Amino acid sequence: MTPASPPSTRATVRYKGRGHYDRELIDSILDEAILCHVGVVQEDGTPMVLPTLFARDGDHLYVHGSPASRLLRAGKKGVELCVTVMLLDGFVMAKSAFHHSVNYRSVVAFGTADEVTDAEEKRRALELLVEHIHPGRSAESRPPTDDELKKTLVLRLPLDEASAKVREGGPIDDEEDLDLPYWTGVIPVRSVRGEPVST
Amino acid sequence: MTPASPPSTRATVRYKGRGHYDRELIDSILDEAILCHVGVVQEDGTPMVLPTLFARDGDHLYVHGSPASRLLRAGKKGVELCVTVMLLDGFVMAKSAFHHSVNYRSVVAFGTADEVTDAEEKRRALELLVEHIHPGRSAESRPPTDDELKKTLVLRLPLDEASAKVREGGPIDDEEDLDLPYWTGVIPVRSVRGEPVST
Repeated sequence: MTPASPPSTRATVRYKGRGHYDRELIDSILDEAILCHVGVVQEDGTPMVLPTLFARDGDHLYVHGSPASRLLRAGKKGVELCVTVMLLDGFVMAKSAFHHSVNYRSVVAFGTADEVTDAEEKRRALELLVEHIHPGRSAESRPPTDDELKKTLVLRLPLDEASAKVREGGPIDDEEDLDLPYWTGVIPVRSVRGEPVST
Repeated sequence: MTPASPPSTRATVRYKGRGHYDRELIDSILDEAILCHVGVVQEDGTPMVLPTLFARDGDHLYVHGSPASRLLRAGKKGVELCVTVMLLDGFVMAKSAFHHSVNYRSVVAFGTADEVTDAEEKRRALELLVEHIHPGRSAESRPPTDDELKKTLVLRLPLDEASAKVREGGPIDDEEDLDLPYWTGVIPVRSVRGEPVST
């Protein structure tokens, strides 16, 4: 991992040993994840967090949806967004309840979005979104019509204010607990795809 | 499913056919999920979304962490929070790229949190948090000491302003696309636990 510095105060991971700022790691987490959670401050000043699909293209993320989406309507106005991605890797079982934990790789990106209006970029973003959930699928489905493009709002978010946070490895127990008669270790967890069901 | 009404405007799901407000469904999603994403408005007015473990106890959720956590410090001041939980169930492959989708069950809850200061409730919340990631585990680990309790901040969030959103079933293609030569169906996805690795 290449060392890199926090891009801003708000993008600095509080737990120093677990914060990373190199784009290679950040990109690998984004590319493995399927969903992100996007946070926005609503007009009444309260926060809203909605899960959505996304795709990365170099230094940007794309999210898309209905032009009626509350999240996208807010995002298209250029308000600040927070995009968070989380990969859960395992449950960490310690001798003490206190030291139980989870292994994970997460990314948090702050910034404002732009609406993608260029038809060519919009087509590419939508293709990447389909490819991100199922590689190869954009060639195995009918591409969007001009009317469908109009019915889809696409936002582009920069990745220049992003951080990653990673926890890995076994439990970190207190020395005085090490002889307690409890099993310790890691229970891995992962997302798997099942057999396709035809319609 | 019992019919129920949206508890507030901000907790109303825009896509009517997919919004649900009955607590039985909301609770079942919360109890199956491991992680939530909590959104808060930071002091500079920008949103922050962080993933965290949680556990439900009747009409409340508990989240916990270090008293130094930015999220928990904000939440303990009684600011508005948004807690979002997402279960991804499948990838929906349609004839057209446009009608590709995902099946999912999600919950969004708005409200303000209280810090849990009562030692007994705090112990119970921490027990539920351990039980939520691995049922039975709280009896198989050392309970928290008073000092560990002090080192843990626990917030309680109400569930009285929550909604669920659900998509299920196959793709909904346009009639004129039905003869296109592409496979359609659903690829199920789920989170699985692997073989425990002892430390």
